[in-house]
Amino acid sequence: MFAPLQNDTFLRACLRQATDYTPIWLMRQAGRYLPEYCATRAKAGSFMGLATHVDYATEVTLQPLARYPLDAAILFSDILTVPDAMGLGLSFAQGEGPRFATPVRDEAAVARLEVPDLDRLRYVFDAVTSIRKALNGRVPLIGFSGSPWTLACYMVEGAGSDDYRLVKSMLYSRPDLMHRILSINADAVAAYLNAQIDAGAQAVMVFDSWGGVLADGAFQAFSLAYTARVLTQLKRHGPDGKIVPRLVFTKGGGLWLPEMKALDCEVLGLDWTMNLATARSLVGGTAGGHGKALQGNIDPNVLFAPPTQIRLEATRVLESFGAPHTDRNLTGPTHIFNLGHGISQFTPPDHVAALVDAVHTHSRSMRAA
Amino acid sequence: MFAPLQNDTFLRACLRQATDYTPIWLMRQAGRYLPEYCATRAKAGSFMGLATHVDYATEVTLQPLARYPLDAAILFSDILTVPDAMGLGLSFAQGEGPRFATPVRDEAAVARLEVPDLDRLRYVFDAVTSIRKALNGRVPLIGFSGSPWTLACYMVEGAGSDDYRLVKSMLYSRPDLMHRILSINADAVAAYLNAQIDAGAQAVMVFDSWGGVLADGAFQAFSLAYTARVLTQLKRHGPDGKIVPRLVFTKGGGLWLPEMKALDCEVLGLDWTMNLATARSLVGGTAGGHGKALQGNIDPNVLFAPPTQIRLEATRVLESFGAPHTDRNLTGPTHIFNLGHGISQFTPPDHVAALVDAVHTHSRSMRAA
Repeated sequence: MFAPLQNDTFLRACLRQATDYTPIWLMRQAGRYLPEYCATRAKAGSFMGLATHVDYATEVTLQPLARYPLDAAILFSDILTVPDAMGLGLSFAQGEGPRFATPVRDEAAVARLEVPDLDRLRYVFDAVTSIRKALNGRVPLIGFSGSPWTLACYMVEGAGSDDYRLVKSMLYSRPDLMHRILSINADAVAAYLNAQIDAGAQAVMVFDSWGGVLADGAFQAFSLAYTARVLTQLKRHGPDGKIVPRLVFTKGGGLWLPEMKALDCEVLGLDWTMNLATARSLVGGTAGGHGKALQGNIDPNVLFAPPTQIRLEATRVLESFGAPHTDRNLTGPTHIFNLGHGISQFTPPDHVAALVDAVHTHSRSMRAA
Repeated sequence: MFAPLQNDTFLRACLRQATDYTPIWLMRQAGRYLPEYCATRAKAGSFMGLATHVDYATEVTLQPLARYPLDAAILFSDILTVPDAMGLGLSFAQGEGPRFATPVRDEAAVARLEVPDLDRLRYVFDAVTSIRKALNGRVPLIGFSGSPWTLACYMVEGAGSDDYRLVKSMLYSRPDLMHRILSINADAVAAYLNAQIDAGAQAVMVFDSWGGVLADGAFQAFSLAYTARVLTQLKRHGPDGKIVPRLVFTKGGGLWLPEMKALDCEVLGLDWTMNLATARSLVGGTAGGHGKALQGNIDPNVLFAPPTQIRLEATRVLESFGAPHTDRNLTGPTHIFNLGHGISQFTPPDHVAALVDAVHTHSRSMRAA
């Protein structure tokens, strides 16, 4: 159905298999820092106009690959498509973040929630198939969703927040309501990701962007448990019979890495606060043993420095993880290079080229050493 | 000169000495959630009008003590008084955060920076002495400052930020400039805190509010090293010959606790993401041995739940730290209860009463058990 994969470096690293170099892709790599993205978005009229239009979504997904030798593509979409399909009315005002017309603030609103009809998300699955065709086997395609907790933050707050007062008020006052929202979200996210896999996604990632705002104890009960509930429901193989690696990224989740080790997934994403050597020793496993592949974790603000500094910092992050194993007969610790958070809209595009080249070049030399 | 101290529970806990119960105070306890604070602020006309007026600053510092049996008072001031004294022009627009008229963005601006004449901060030291007199020995008074890195964030950004793009761009592009800013800030903060000690502060706290936004490696070089530089310059005793405990709070710093153990201070503050039992085992020490007292760490959003839930969560935090040592002949692990961040302006005041009572009552019962 789809063309054979030419660059499997990312997928191999997800499965803790040896690779010739460290693969790299960038969270939000198709985005506003690229003038060609802004041009397509202008044609589409709005963010959701872009995300719901299969041809535009395909076009912007492939734009960063035309500029940089990235090792994976990621579906162009938003983490909030699922609650939008639940009827909450997602919109993006100019220059602002996402907003829901009807946030979930009381018992009646919680009672009305249900797993949405996946037909309302058909535009996403159509985009996955279209992108997969357009990639023509060049690199694998990653599908994604927000985590149940991260979706709940937006669903209750109605928009971004700097204190999470409304969602945490519900969590502490009415944990029963919060658990009901999260249960529905988990089942919806699992169905959503499975449909992306059916449509052609070769890996799937759960973005727990706001897990790190929770207190110790609350994180385990209200975020981690529901990410686990998603993972247990996910298909392990695509329509082609290939394994579909599952990635989980909790921003600000470094303290909980020992507990995230128990998640039934292949890759853990890390932000820039986490020391990669420490993370590797905690969850990376050994050659021949079990463990998680690690993804991350350079500070996106490094990309505002001159290319010479970018190369130094990229090297520092690679060396911090240390040499990946190189025995093709064994699984072992592997590193997928990424930012610790989405790329800034103000990033100079040629600085991204310096980063990608530094990672490819230096990681090859680490393996030769 | 000042009346003798009647309640030394907080100071004893800072020094890892046994206490009859766990002392509690709240970050930003004198603030907008109190109607009496809002009334005084209205009289003062502006935030800086309030902070620079000795009588008003004294009045609002004592307001929460009139409502709740808190175990410490904290100087009413702002973390940004030092860069204001450097000539950056601090202001607070209505409904917004702090703003500097002349942020530090280039080499020339960095070259102009110097440790300010402390006479420009006389209003702070006068407030310390006035508050200390007004307290009349009831509870100890904590002085404070922002950390060198946290001050630098505001000095370069010119205001709050959600991505720290400008300050991190400078850090990664021109680390030499950033080190110069931080050196000056460290020496200024040390002189500022020493003058607060001379004026009557019985403990001093460094708020590293934005240390947690730094990458691993950058935190150690650009925040921790300069907090350490402040600490080495601080007076160890007040004019009365009493030891002045030093507290350091890095929001989002839990991952770096093993490295913060080496700081020359008595107390480490923690936000709600850190497990207190883990923190105690890492840095709390043992009875008879060395270690840090720990301060924190309930999520301020717990205060939006009903009092019954507040009591449950307060108990959970106390039990998470576990039983403090009770031998009056030994130092050992101690806990100072606090929020993990400043109290929200939307907090119902009677919920604070429930928290303070729960901490006092339950912590006494833990010692009796």
